[in-house]
Amino acid sequence: MQIAILLYDRFTALDAIGPYEVLSRLPGAELSFVAAEPGPITTDTRILTIAVERSLEDVPSPDVLLIPGGPGEDVLRADRVLDWVRKAHETSTWTTSVCTGSLVLARAGVLDGKRATSHWLALDRLRELGAEPVEGERIVEDGKNVTAAGVSAGIDMALHLAGRIAGEEVAQTIQLYIEYDPQPPFDAGSPAKAPADLVARTRAASRFALAR
Amino acid sequence: MQIAILLYDRFTALDAIGPYEVLSRLPGAELSFVAAEPGPITTDTRILTIAVERSLEDVPSPDVLLIPGGPGEDVLRADRVLDWVRKAHETSTWTTSVCTGSLVLARAGVLDGKRATSHWLALDRLRELGAEPVEGERIVEDGKNVTAAGVSAGIDMALHLAGRIAGEEVAQTIQLYIEYDPQPPFDAGSPAKAPADLVARTRAASRFALAR
Repeated sequence: MQIAILLYDRFTALDAIGPYEVLSRLPGAELSFVAAEPGPITTDTRILTIAVERSLEDVPSPDVLLIPGGPGEDVLRADRVLDWVRKAHETSTWTTSVCTGSLVLARAGVLDGKRATSHWLALDRLRELGAEPVEGERIVEDGKNVTAAGVSAGIDMALHLAGRIAGEEVAQTIQLYIEYDPQPPFDAGSPAKAPADLVARTRAASRFALAR
Repeated sequence: MQIAILLYDRFTALDAIGPYEVLSRLPGAELSFVAAEPGPITTDTRILTIAVERSLEDVPSPDVLLIPGGPGEDVLRADRVLDWVRKAHETSTWTTSVCTGSLVLARAGVLDGKRATSHWLALDRLRELGAEPVEGERIVEDGKNVTAAGVSAGIDMALHLAGRIAGEEVAQTIQLYIEYDPQPPFDAGSPAKAPADLVARTRAASRFALAR
């Protein structure tokens, strides 16, 4: 089973690494990071650089396609990238995203009229791109599309996918191995739960590249 | 504020990237990945390679020292690495670990007689190395040592640290930004919660490098 995670300049690391940590442990999984231009790919913070060896053409028809989010998603407009997404989607079993990765799927047209999610700051943008955003859901499955909310939601999505692909017991074994029994010290992880003034300030100060 | 995350061959990616995603967003943080030999460092799955630019000597006295876990921790026995850990610990504000990273701290002697945790499969080993393992706690703080349970626990620990370093509001803002409102699809993330047969089989099949 081929799993392709698309990396690009200024992606958000945890969007990709959370799902990688889960999905790479699926029996029979062959997980690859791919990029339009293989080589060093640097994250949004500019602190972390990942060496990507495979190009889009090296993995033309993955069983699972995953697009992480990050401020750099806005530049993923090259026809070559969007064509690859469309082609991969034609034969994929699952077409998935984390955070603003769903904006790339939407831009490629694969979320037209589909229920989907994204980072909470990007739901309006997702609607403008033709999807039907769902508020307050951490994982949205519509047909073979599975989209996750912001950044850390990719871990939950990957466990959900692991269960759908390999069964509950395999997914639980991976969960136990990565000791995913989350106990956040605060309860501010969604706009519905965080203090209202903090949500307002985060919205105002958003460093997300939501400009067109 | 300097934050150093020690990488090494066969570390587990999420152990490092979870905390990185939180701590790199602290105001004034200067987060570096460091390695005994800078260059490409490959994770336990052999799929993911991170380019590390800084050596141990480049960051001799970080304010926060963080050691992720992974099967490769067992080879972190070089005097040069353990000396660096000991020296860094002398002047650090926080000396921290995720998963079996605590075994490295213990081997360096900085957890002697201290309450600490590790991956649930490594608690016995932690005791043998002189620490006082605490079962069933996801984050253990003892003096300036903060140790986290397996792999994904580093996210919780980093938010806890963020709160201690910069206050609750900053930590909550980061939590909201990375949308850390975990909703695992299964409840099998600790040996106390997973089905007993699954825990037994995972223990038996453990790929952790716990051999001496």
